[in-house]
Amino acid sequence: MKIISVDPFYLRMPDISTAADGTQDTLLIRIRTDSGIEGWGECDASPLVSIAVYCCPMSHGNIININTSLIGETLDGPDDIIRLRDKVLRNALDIQQIQHAYSGAEIALWDILGKHLEQPIYSILADMTDTPDIPHPKLPYASVLFGDTPEDTYNIATELKKQGYRAVKFGWGPIGQFDEDYDIALVKAAREGMGEDAQLMVDAGVAYGTSFELAYQRAAAFLEFSLVWLEEPLAPDAIREYYKLTSSHPGIPIAAGEGCSTYRMAEDLVVNGGIQYIQIDTGRIGGIMPSFQVRELAETHDIQYVNHTFKSHLSLSAALHVFVTNPAFELLEYPAAGSQLSQSLVSNPYPIDDDGFVRVKELPGLGVTVDTDAIREFLVSVSIDVGQESIFEQSQL
Amino acid sequence: MKIISVDPFYLRMPDISTAADGTQDTLLIRIRTDSGIEGWGECDASPLVSIAVYCCPMSHGNIININTSLIGETLDGPDDIIRLRDKVLRNALDIQQIQHAYSGAEIALWDILGKHLEQPIYSILADMTDTPDIPHPKLPYASVLFGDTPEDTYNIATELKKQGYRAVKFGWGPIGQFDEDYDIALVKAAREGMGEDAQLMVDAGVAYGTSFELAYQRAAAFLEFSLVWLEEPLAPDAIREYYKLTSSHPGIPIAAGEGCSTYRMAEDLVVNGGIQYIQIDTGRIGGIMPSFQVRELAETHDIQYVNHTFKSHLSLSAALHVFVTNPAFELLEYPAAGSQLSQSLVSNPYPIDDDGFVRVKELPGLGVTVDTDAIREFLVSVSIDVGQESIFEQSQL
Repeated sequence: MKIISVDPFYLRMPDISTAADGTQDTLLIRIRTDSGIEGWGECDASPLVSIAVYCCPMSHGNIININTSLIGETLDGPDDIIRLRDKVLRNALDIQQIQHAYSGAEIALWDILGKHLEQPIYSILADMTDTPDIPHPKLPYASVLFGDTPEDTYNIATELKKQGYRAVKFGWGPIGQFDEDYDIALVKAAREGMGEDAQLMVDAGVAYGTSFELAYQRAAAFLEFSLVWLEEPLAPDAIREYYKLTSSHPGIPIAAGEGCSTYRMAEDLVVNGGIQYIQIDTGRIGGIMPSFQVRELAETHDIQYVNHTFKSHLSLSAALHVFVTNPAFELLEYPAAGSQLSQSLVSNPYPIDDDGFVRVKELPGLGVTVDTDAIREFLVSVSIDVGQESIFEQSQL
Repeated sequence: MKIISVDPFYLRMPDISTAADGTQDTLLIRIRTDSGIEGWGECDASPLVSIAVYCCPMSHGNIININTSLIGETLDGPDDIIRLRDKVLRNALDIQQIQHAYSGAEIALWDILGKHLEQPIYSILADMTDTPDIPHPKLPYASVLFGDTPEDTYNIATELKKQGYRAVKFGWGPIGQFDEDYDIALVKAAREGMGEDAQLMVDAGVAYGTSFELAYQRAAAFLEFSLVWLEEPLAPDAIREYYKLTSSHPGIPIAAGEGCSTYRMAEDLVVNGGIQYIQIDTGRIGGIMPSFQVRELAETHDIQYVNHTFKSHLSLSAALHVFVTNPAFELLEYPAAGSQLSQSLVSNPYPIDDDGFVRVKELPGLGVTVDTDAIREFLVSVSIDVGQESIFEQSQL
């Protein structure tokens, strides 16, 4: 097959707030081949900045855009995905945004390849890496924002419990914005709302910056609530502080990694930061292959791999294929509250089965179908002119 | 002072080639304040992708553009530069391109502050950090591309020697593209052209990827040419391979770092990669302050700090202020061949003094003046529409 088109689509809700809700907009990438097969991927990244990486004029041999690297290329097997990744990254050596932008295209290439080979992506990955080709159910955890107050948080928790969630993560919003008592009250409310049996995680949303002391104090204060993990108490780059925190054995496993935009950043967090859960966003790190490499790293280091997903079920699917064949990685971040855009993006989202688990779809490629009719109303037309030249015009969705 | 405008300018030569020549285009940032003072900075980054970071629509609280973060803000002292950096990076937590884009603005803020305080930037940095406030001359090394053949390389070297350069770095172009004999012939030609007394550096331009073996073999093969350093034999992210290379003591100091877009990437190369020269581009890592922090890291680890500069003398000036007060760091990357755009960008470039050294200008701020009349012909007008809204229109230069 030859790649004949690579098209980004910027979609967004009519109103955008500063809430840490990544479903308010999105960037989809559609790739088409001369065989008639098309594939889709989603980036968890700034849509406009990432679109620029698909169309920016060449600056020199190290700043060449993604479309130039991909269009006209051959895609017949998994080796081509590796080869194209290497080509794209080499051509964009000096474009910092490259992994965020390329993630959607890389996922779309896997989607095409799976449809072409009539295999689910996890199965192609298993063949490639000579690992077991058996998918396992994952326990979905609802990933929601803290309410503005402990009372709101309690109400959200009881509602999620009613919906049947056995694992929930609360994050961002007010945590870390006031004092220790407030943070404790928030976590206490979440635990009380969910009950003692639920798995509960807390995402501090980088609130304690580079302060090991604050992070350690909070971890100690949260001990009584039996958290599965405390997530991102520190800034993504604060590797030395992560090491201080994890090596002082705070009694709660530490999770981080959603900010990893390269494999090395993940490796740095695991090897030098000493975290216990590495959380990878397939839509930021450059797609499925680098995510799979972090999964292998987690296996080697005997820590937990878990997805970071705060987008649609298109992203959820890409995330799931990466680690569905390893039953030791039990949890799946499952966006439980999202915008209408996010919820209508695919026509066949992943249900939670009656036993409370999520299972990968035994369908070719990603296994989800983008509902272009449902999301067209959210499409934002982008046009970019540089000099006298139109370098980006919106394609039809 | 209040910041009243932040304007990016995309400038480029009429013809752009794939050569690794970063002077073919550039991105300037101009910031104006209500006091009438304006400052300038230059990014070594994709102009279009970086412009998008100045104007992209908000996605949520972690994707907020630079203009929104800066306009209306106060700038009165160095603490404001730190505060604004923290604000910009926090607001753009999920924009991978943020450091590349922000570099120009951060440099412009220093330029403004220096003019406001009537101090050169190096002197403000010395006050801030309680370090000696005495600038020292630097030995400029010409930074040029290898010729396409050993013969061409020899001719370039003899020409540079005639011009009086006592230190030269050859890089990119054919090195690593053919076989070991060709690589050796290139380096031999450079040495023969420069003569035995010159300081000679080789930049392999990431040609050996993640191959420790190739990198080690070349380092061994180049031993006889008495190189000051071998630069970037490996991919920027190949930290483990860098460690293998440096810890196997190849006999040639290893240099790397131009790809560092965060302080942590530099720290990772130094602490975990074991390199002997850390090369920082002030126009990529987020500006002057993070570069200064890497300088301090180099001092702590007793290795060499050296600038990476392949842009105009505006960038050279920003780079020089960072480390001019430490005489132990002797060398200065000095672009010896550059486009007409790059060479005419400032009206008062840094000369090489009669004794062969470059000295910082004892002028407020950066100490160089952007020659807007000379570069106006290279301005590329950019316009970006998102939905019905024009989100970027080119300002007057």
